[in-house]
Amino acid sequence: MKVGICGLGTVGSGTFNLILKNNSEIERRIGNQICVAQVGCRRDHPDCDLSDVHVTRDVFDVVRNPDIDIVIEVIGGIDVARALVLEAISNNKHVVTANKALIAEHGQEIMVAASEKGVQVKFEAAVAGGIPIVKAIREGMAANKVEWIIGIINGTSNYILSKMTESGGSLSFVDVLKDAQELGYAEADPTFDVEGIDAAHKLTILSSIAFGAPLRFDAIFTEGITQITSDDIDYAGELGFVIKHLGIARNQGDTIAMRVHPCLVAADHMLAQVKGVMNAVVVGGDAAGPTMYYGAGAGSLPTASAIISDVVDIVRSSGANIVENLGFEKSALISKKVVMVGEVVSRAYLRLIVSDQPGVMARISTILSQHKISIESLIQKNARAGYADVVIITNAILEETLDIAVRKLSTMDDVKNDVKRIRIADFFNV
Amino acid sequence: MKVGICGLGTVGSGTFNLILKNNSEIERRIGNQICVAQVGCRRDHPDCDLSDVHVTRDVFDVVRNPDIDIVIEVIGGIDVARALVLEAISNNKHVVTANKALIAEHGQEIMVAASEKGVQVKFEAAVAGGIPIVKAIREGMAANKVEWIIGIINGTSNYILSKMTESGGSLSFVDVLKDAQELGYAEADPTFDVEGIDAAHKLTILSSIAFGAPLRFDAIFTEGITQITSDDIDYAGELGFVIKHLGIARNQGDTIAMRVHPCLVAADHMLAQVKGVMNAVVVGGDAAGPTMYYGAGAGSLPTASAIISDVVDIVRSSGANIVENLGFEKSALISKKVVMVGEVVSRAYLRLIVSDQPGVMARISTILSQHKISIESLIQKNARAGYADVVIITNAILEETLDIAVRKLSTMDDVKNDVKRIRIADFFNV
Repeated sequence: MKVGICGLGTVGSGTFNLILKNNSEIERRIGNQICVAQVGCRRDHPDCDLSDVHVTRDVFDVVRNPDIDIVIEVIGGIDVARALVLEAISNNKHVVTANKALIAEHGQEIMVAASEKGVQVKFEAAVAGGIPIVKAIREGMAANKVEWIIGIINGTSNYILSKMTESGGSLSFVDVLKDAQELGYAEADPTFDVEGIDAAHKLTILSSIAFGAPLRFDAIFTEGITQITSDDIDYAGELGFVIKHLGIARNQGDTIAMRVHPCLVAADHMLAQVKGVMNAVVVGGDAAGPTMYYGAGAGSLPTASAIISDVVDIVRSSGANIVENLGFEKSALISKKVVMVGEVVSRAYLRLIVSDQPGVMARISTILSQHKISIESLIQKNARAGYADVVIITNAILEETLDIAVRKLSTMDDVKNDVKRIRIADFFNV
Repeated sequence: MKVGICGLGTVGSGTFNLILKNNSEIERRIGNQICVAQVGCRRDHPDCDLSDVHVTRDVFDVVRNPDIDIVIEVIGGIDVARALVLEAISNNKHVVTANKALIAEHGQEIMVAASEKGVQVKFEAAVAGGIPIVKAIREGMAANKVEWIIGIINGTSNYILSKMTESGGSLSFVDVLKDAQELGYAEADPTFDVEGIDAAHKLTILSSIAFGAPLRFDAIFTEGITQITSDDIDYAGELGFVIKHLGIARNQGDTIAMRVHPCLVAADHMLAQVKGVMNAVVVGGDAAGPTMYYGAGAGSLPTASAIISDVVDIVRSSGANIVENLGFEKSALISKKVVMVGEVVSRAYLRLIVSDQPGVMARISTILSQHKISIESLIQKNARAGYADVVIITNAILEETLDIAVRKLSTMDDVKNDVKRIRIADFFNV
């Protein structure tokens, strides 16, 4: 299957480069490399080496190229994108798009055209970036009547509200918007994001695939975050809530309710923990119960990840390769050297029961320092008469080294227990 | 495609009943109902009406029935299950199983047999119950080199640690285990769960499908939660951590590291919020970044949801129906009545700026009570000289009614602003 990419902005360039970077890993999964046969773009992208690819300045050349099987539409906007996608379909090409506005507003027409031609139109990247939420709902929840969806689906709004919350009242909406624009998290004209329109596009799509109802962008109640002040955030905090911008859809009997607006969320709910530009969607299925999907809602590579997963899906469903039962071609499984737990580096929690005598801590510290283990935190408590609990958080250390130190500590006269060791999950060093 | 179910315990009965309950919703997605042509079980299940289905007492009859296309294996255990699955495969049947021990310990042999026969073996239900984590990794992350996985994948252990944590030191491991056994969250013999073996089975499967490496249950370092005491949980809490039982796998260069053990997790990390019997898995992809998947890790209906999603996948990949681009057959989309936002019932946050005079609160309360709106919480603060901020959390009320009250409040002489209203997300009433 040959792929043509239309558009070489942030998402298009990420897609092009990610295919190059991970093509051998992708080949292990589907038995073939993805071949980018043509790129249509008004200008080259400084991050992309296009020397081996056929480049055309008119994106319509791509959808008219008889060699192309799958068109990736990442030009954005509505009118040209609509014409491009419809022409691709009429030329019997599958389409993968990241364009939420296009699907939300013209999806019906596009799906009818695709259905008539027997081609696929896929749009994982249109909702919540790198999170495979379309697949989770469409396939993972296929046995469920989906009853509701609730999610943080606009990263810009979530970034602004999170920063306002973290600042403790010192930063206003306008302050943080400016900061977000400088960081590239908000557009120069932020209307689509901060007024809730982008979230409404995404909720339109999620509601349709979850409830099996036509796309109804026109039926969504939409309110943005421009009226939320620091005072509101503070008062909500005092009452046990945080303010989030949510998309909410409910499917009940023969009715559907869809709305996008700021919301007070209980501070201990999972959605309250979703911060910065991250997205999360909770899906309420009648059998699975609530399941939540969390990750980066935008960005070049996360969006490219979603686009290519759609391409892989089309390749898998079109070819004979349905029997990679572990997710990789059986001949592509690679036996890897197993790292033993002793070779892992991480921090650790140590707990010692010691006799409550002078110099104990010095003797413990000496053994640790002999093995180049340092103490990040320490608690000492006189738990029982004559004994103390000593709890230590170590620095990140090779587990074998810690094993030796723990054995030495356990044999000290002062130490009354087999020293207890619990590992610490350091999430950037798992 | 005709389905045979082997086993009618908790998961088998849930699967049988869920197919009956949601068959018309499933038909909207795949164009056909799922037909359960045979059930193999040693005894009937009180929750299942088997009057319209062919029941056999020998499960091997099901895999020998030439009418059956897909065998659902939910008898559990290893030896008989292995023989059953291998015979199903050799009879050219697709297999769907919830059996993590079988796949982790004999998956290689089973996948080779399936590959030779060109049939599919699917096991979404084997890991993390209702969460579509196998699909997310295998398909959603197909464009990524998966670098690491970290997850809470044993609900029993998470329930026990959560309850010990919530009790503030008053409940021991043994106390909570007894409680969990009474609630059905732990087996009479809890060894597999509390010693980490069940989690190791699941991590074996996750590592293989994420990293494209053979299943290596033997290579997993495994430690359970039996040594964790209330004191450890308290000390960890003082240091800013909670204790969780985690599965951790890392894929680095030509090495793989896999381990299952208790871990200190920073209290503000998303995984620290995963409580009770819930599961969550974080997947670190090189393009998508970290994505997290959260939901019920066990239970009759969540597990049935995963099993049936696998059946649906097989039907979709085997038939001509690949063109339901919105996740439903185009003729099956149902236009639903749209509920306007005014018809939604929820609590609300109201903020008023009022003149700081006697009787103001009485006048506000009167207007609210005239519309049958009650006050759940209230903050009054003298923000500026002569003025006060009044913040009210209302009870759950029809939004139209609240609109009228808000308009009346806004025209009061005492009230100096257009009363601000922010909705509250009540998660069981979205």
